[in-house]
Amino acid sequence: MGAMSDAPTDRAQVKRLPERGRYDREIVDAILDEALFCHLAWVQDGSPRVVPTIHARDGDTLFVHGSQASRTLRAARDGAEVCVEVTLLDGLVLARSAFHHSMNYRSVVVYGLAREVDDPDEKWHAQKVLVDHVVRGRSDDVRMPNELELKQTMILSVPLDEASAKIRTGPAKDDEEDYDLPIWAGVLPLRVEPGDIVPDPRLGDGLEPPENVTRYTR
Amino acid sequence: MGAMSDAPTDRAQVKRLPERGRYDREIVDAILDEALFCHLAWVQDGSPRVVPTIHARDGDTLFVHGSQASRTLRAARDGAEVCVEVTLLDGLVLARSAFHHSMNYRSVVVYGLAREVDDPDEKWHAQKVLVDHVVRGRSDDVRMPNELELKQTMILSVPLDEASAKIRTGPAKDDEEDYDLPIWAGVLPLRVEPGDIVPDPRLGDGLEPPENVTRYTR
Repeated sequence: MGAMSDAPTDRAQVKRLPERGRYDREIVDAILDEALFCHLAWVQDGSPRVVPTIHARDGDTLFVHGSQASRTLRAARDGAEVCVEVTLLDGLVLARSAFHHSMNYRSVVVYGLAREVDDPDEKWHAQKVLVDHVVRGRSDDVRMPNELELKQTMILSVPLDEASAKIRTGPAKDDEEDYDLPIWAGVLPLRVEPGDIVPDPRLGDGLEPPENVTRYTR
Repeated sequence: MGAMSDAPTDRAQVKRLPERGRYDREIVDAILDEALFCHLAWVQDGSPRVVPTIHARDGDTLFVHGSQASRTLRAARDGAEVCVEVTLLDGLVLARSAFHHSMNYRSVVVYGLAREVDDPDEKWHAQKVLVDHVVRGRSDDVRMPNELELKQTMILSVPLDEASAKIRTGPAKDDEEDYDLPIWAGVLPLRVEPGDIVPDPRLGDGLEPPENVTRYTR
């Protein structure tokens, strides 16, 4: 998993089961890049809110599609405090005791101030990065946004200064005395797999799905 | 999708793209039951926090494994305000324009006050419901928690009074003038699939994986 770095801040440090914490940017980046969507949390009138939305990393910046959160986040002109989380589920960890059941996963939490991207060029670039995050190279194939569409889109930019990853891998860790119990234990790996492509009902004649769709992988 | 009910509260109402909102409990319940894990958000020192964790529905109650959030949430003796979100990703919606790219998904957001489950019997029951949520019937096969394990576990109980679902299905909705563009469009369905079972390295002789694992489905 690479060498371990220190947590950038106290709240970014993994307190519970600290051996699962990772602070290397390359580990954080790989998880952010693989995850198809994120969970954007913010505080609204003192209450917690969280919505699923699309993100994409661009170097040291995380772009987050913010429309669902727009009413609140637009109000914060100088940057709204957000917490962005992504999780990749890798498997079910089935132990001999209920207590030691777990999941194998890779997750990232990013804390920071979200800035609204309002420069049209940066917004266009962010839109490109977001589309290519979902399907590699897709921005070369599609009609890119016009001025009106850019205005209707809300994109947030969050720096990756305060991010941490948490990873669990491997078998269950049962209590020593439970290993003798006649109970099956193991890991059931899980992964996201593409199904059969559904062409658009109004697809133009002779158009075939491109290779980045037919051979889709994360 | 069943008849549409009204949103239980204003904040539980889907404001953006309101046609995607669903407030029927059976729809909310089915999504909560299918999702393997949730995202638990709360406010800590005025800042948003969100972590992935395991949940399970028990009638009108959502149990949430709260250890990662424990330091904060234990402090809120009379109930901490939380927001719990689950999302099932069903596919990538690839439109002719970047702007109309989307995802098919089913998500639920629950708002409420989280109560810490401290009665040992209720906690034992919650642990059982949580294990069975991950693998149906697993609680019959494993060693259930002892007193010490129950003490070490933090489980939150959140009522399902204020919950809403949001669902997107179907093809892309492109702008009328874009349908003539020579761009392939369609939906790439995605689903979570089990891989090959990995038996525990210290598995007892003659133990075979049970059917709820070999034929695992959600």
